[in-house]
Amino acid sequence: MVNGYWIMDKIGRYEFMAEPFHCDFSGQLFMGHMGNHMLNAADFHSSARGFGMKYLMTIKRSWVLSRLAIEMNEMPQQYTKFNVETWVESAMRYFTSRNFAVIGIDDNPLTSDHSPLTSKIYGYGRSIWAMIDTETRQPTDIYAIDNGAINNWIVADKPCPIDKGGRVKMSGDAELVRTIDTYYNDVDINGHINSVKYIEHVLDLWDIDWYRNHWVKRFEIAYVAEAHQGDQLSFYMEKQEESLTSDHAPLTSFNVRIVRSDGTECCRSKVVFASR
Amino acid sequence: MVNGYWIMDKIGRYEFMAEPFHCDFSGQLFMGHMGNHMLNAADFHSSARGFGMKYLMTIKRSWVLSRLAIEMNEMPQQYTKFNVETWVESAMRYFTSRNFAVIGIDDNPLTSDHSPLTSKIYGYGRSIWAMIDTETRQPTDIYAIDNGAINNWIVADKPCPIDKGGRVKMSGDAELVRTIDTYYNDVDINGHINSVKYIEHVLDLWDIDWYRNHWVKRFEIAYVAEAHQGDQLSFYMEKQEESLTSDHAPLTSFNVRIVRSDGTECCRSKVVFASR
Repeated sequence: MVNGYWIMDKIGRYEFMAEPFHCDFSGQLFMGHMGNHMLNAADFHSSARGFGMKYLMTIKRSWVLSRLAIEMNEMPQQYTKFNVETWVESAMRYFTSRNFAVIGIDDNPLTSDHSPLTSKIYGYGRSIWAMIDTETRQPTDIYAIDNGAINNWIVADKPCPIDKGGRVKMSGDAELVRTIDTYYNDVDINGHINSVKYIEHVLDLWDIDWYRNHWVKRFEIAYVAEAHQGDQLSFYMEKQEESLTSDHAPLTSFNVRIVRSDGTECCRSKVVFASR
Repeated sequence: MVNGYWIMDKIGRYEFMAEPFHCDFSGQLFMGHMGNHMLNAADFHSSARGFGMKYLMTIKRSWVLSRLAIEMNEMPQQYTKFNVETWVESAMRYFTSRNFAVIGIDDNPLTSDHSPLTSKIYGYGRSIWAMIDTETRQPTDIYAIDNGAINNWIVADKPCPIDKGGRVKMSGDAELVRTIDTYYNDVDINGHINSVKYIEHVLDLWDIDWYRNHWVKRFEIAYVAEAHQGDQLSFYMEKQEESLTSDHAPLTSFNVRIVRSDGTECCRSKVVFASR
């Protein structure tokens, strides 16, 4: 033990597979399932290091996902195994920033000259988490947990070379494009609409014909307020200007606002499509 | 090698976990995800034994799931690890029958007197698969694959003590209870509505209040015809007589018919709820 902590890598690495029923018509892993794998990795990482959900429940605290941004170079194809690495980039009193890297698994990790191959980098993720008191539902001091133990796990120097994102700005011109009902399978263990299901519902706004020519290069979502089963969710969308990636591939961006039955905004999302 | 086959257990065993975002409001694994784990186990088992989807694609054949029945004593709770065992119970020219057992993983596999603990049995599954020619979409002879190699994998004597199910009989009185649109996330790699999503859509017919007092003891589905993204799916339901389990718990059964936009029946399902 060092300073009361078992020596454990600050970076967690977890293996996942692009399961057949988690892949879209083109054989690529659905973005929702990629988000799910990242959230699982976050949970495994924090649990193994003493600040996971299970422990927090015992002291009436919980992590709440505030933002998630995922940007891919390429999505894993059906049956591909890959690692999700995750680490805490920074912690403040009320928020921590946790990053992700999605990395290929080499069947043959050495090249013929015995130098290690560089693993394929599928993409990265960034997330922001608050800690709440589960009784008052109010934000609570992260440093109060185990004398600021989170600071022992910060990795400030591992690169996560994607945009941090931020508040998605929407004009008043966003159009109502769909209203859906929410059902039993939309609801998570807290009784709220499942964070992963929001990703699916947003990406369902485009049809297969669109996805034949486009794929999700970047997906960003901010969770603003909770919704419950039975709430209707309305989706307002506006298209942004087209832009280019560094290799001159055209990008098309859309901003989406999700509003529940009582008019409260639940989520705001930005989706950046690249052409196939 | 024995008779040209590597010695490999006829029964496959695969470990899964009830992931947090795959659990319902009560902390139980969703039935759709249990179905997904079984279908993955089937895929891993057949692939390792030379008759998986990947190999079949190379000879223009594919397995098509015809029926799935799952009956649980108990659903795994959030974070629980469990094994899914699977084996081929029988094979005929056009159909094979594959069974599943969902079994607990003991943290401490020995009792204090060093006798092995009997693992918890969560439940069982039964499935029927056809093999089709992917060009003609017609049923094709399973025995033609590798000189009837499937016969080397049959385990006729492992118990699977749940009802085989069969054709779900519906009267003309079933009521239209919901019509839904299908979207991008509903579609699998074959371009058809995903077998697992049908399970979710059926179980979404009941709301959280119903699930507060009931859980899915048995779920049965027959896949009759394919649907595609953009098809609307209409759900017709009728309630069956109430019955009792062997321990006198009341059971409530519903039959559901799913019909696509053009009037063709896609699926027929039976859901048996037990009281909580």
